[in-house]
Amino acid sequence: MRTFLECAPCFLRQALEAARMATNDETVHEKVVRRIASEISDLDMALTPPSMAQRIHRLVRDLTGNADPYLEVKERTNRLALDLLPAVRTRVGKADDPLEMAVRMAMAGNIIDFGLAHRFREEAVEEVLQRAATAPLVGSREGFVEDTERASTILYLADNAGEIVFDRVLIEALGPDRVTVVVRGMPILNDVLREDAAAAGLTGVEIIDNGSDAPGTILDDCSPEFQKTFHSADLIIAKGQGNFETLSEVDANIFFLLKVKCSVIATHTALPLGSHALLTSRKVHES
Amino acid sequence: MRTFLECAPCFLRQALEAARMATNDETVHEKVVRRIASEISDLDMALTPPSMAQRIHRLVRDLTGNADPYLEVKERTNRLALDLLPAVRTRVGKADDPLEMAVRMAMAGNIIDFGLAHRFREEAVEEVLQRAATAPLVGSREGFVEDTERASTILYLADNAGEIVFDRVLIEALGPDRVTVVVRGMPILNDVLREDAAAAGLTGVEIIDNGSDAPGTILDDCSPEFQKTFHSADLIIAKGQGNFETLSEVDANIFFLLKVKCSVIATHTALPLGSHALLTSRKVHES
Repeated sequence: MRTFLECAPCFLRQALEAARMATNDETVHEKVVRRIASEISDLDMALTPPSMAQRIHRLVRDLTGNADPYLEVKERTNRLALDLLPAVRTRVGKADDPLEMAVRMAMAGNIIDFGLAHRFREEAVEEVLQRAATAPLVGSREGFVEDTERASTILYLADNAGEIVFDRVLIEALGPDRVTVVVRGMPILNDVLREDAAAAGLTGVEIIDNGSDAPGTILDDCSPEFQKTFHSADLIIAKGQGNFETLSEVDANIFFLLKVKCSVIATHTALPLGSHALLTSRKVHES
Repeated sequence: MRTFLECAPCFLRQALEAARMATNDETVHEKVVRRIASEISDLDMALTPPSMAQRIHRLVRDLTGNADPYLEVKERTNRLALDLLPAVRTRVGKADDPLEMAVRMAMAGNIIDFGLAHRFREEAVEEVLQRAATAPLVGSREGFVEDTERASTILYLADNAGEIVFDRVLIEALGPDRVTVVVRGMPILNDVLREDAAAAGLTGVEIIDNGSDAPGTILDDCSPEFQKTFHSADLIIAKGQGNFETLSEVDANIFFLLKVKCSVIATHTALPLGSHALLTSRKVHES
């Protein structure tokens, strides 16, 4: 999916946010805003938004001298999510359809995302769980159930720190033996890394990284090992907007599990803002 | 008030919005975003936000070839506001303190502003009136009442189209004979022009323009006639954020009547986002 003009102000806002997390030095914040604005003026619209974000956040890390501006945020959201794990597990255990409820809880985790404008208020977390448990799930619930029953190998492309704790519940419901969890290769925004997967208590499941520092899955930018695993998986579950933006046109058996958080994605998927969506790559191609 | 780094993404978003109102040509939208991003990379932070916006929207008008992108929006909001006028008048007529209620309704008008990100949903208008009628009015209500009783001449710096209809109710409460209403000199965003004042049915009151195309009141950029009137007025009522941003450090007897709509103004005034505020210039200087 290409970058839309609406992404430009969002990139700038996000760069300022990252700069402020990276350092308290206001002259550096200003330098970042100027440099990223200049970058945006030369924006290649054919790039996917995560590809543009990758360039921008490399610059932010360079200019601030901070290799991982979101480190503290990630640690905080991991802890917050772990506190919620018992409540999330109870919801899944009590549900008539535990797999669907696990999908819904993994969706709830996708809302714990400090990379977007509308910041997550920590106190609203119970509300989020309740909404995720009951909101309409748009897309291919039946296809998902069928494909998960058939698949011998499932590649689970994780998205953010914090969220990974909620993913754990879905991975447990799927059966960890056949699941490989994929984290990012290097720090980028609040995206999940190996240490977040470890903090989330993800054990008994294979964890690999994709070798990339993009906030999505740009196949050409990923390691050859990852690419091989990607292409041989029976089923791929891709969490969040970044994975959707980079893989929606890739020919593979992918289910995208995301909350529609911005108007660009809403337009691209023809779904209302705020939708909880379980989209197949086929559905995406047809739309 | 200087420009803050948070203003940068907002400028870019607003430029894209204006470009889309000006033309359906997507290549022009892209050109605007690139050009404004480049402008932002050279941003003079000492300028006030309306001064920066003035430069940006001159460029937008240039690049799109549309001298007044918000014309249709202004006409629409004028009509919408006129439909509401009877209800607004009834609220003022029934109020224990009609002047205060007229201030509150003028504040409600300030919420009808298509220049900001959180767009005004037309159907929510009754809610806005009710909230404006009852929400705490932060600032100097008593000082305002005293000063309006004493003033022989009142300069009323209007803000947006649509809003001007609500201003009419406050101007009537103040006594139109001593009020001079100031509109912008040229089209800028959805800011009020002479034709909007006429559409709002403002009669029996002197209307002057300030000679400027800034979305605020940059004194040096205004006509000498306006500057003279400004400096000789007993009392100045300045509506909205743009007038606040440009006049908060000017030494004059100004009451700013605004809703705090963005985090930059919230920080600068030390008031919560969403506050309905009636601030004196003195209070601003002391804070």
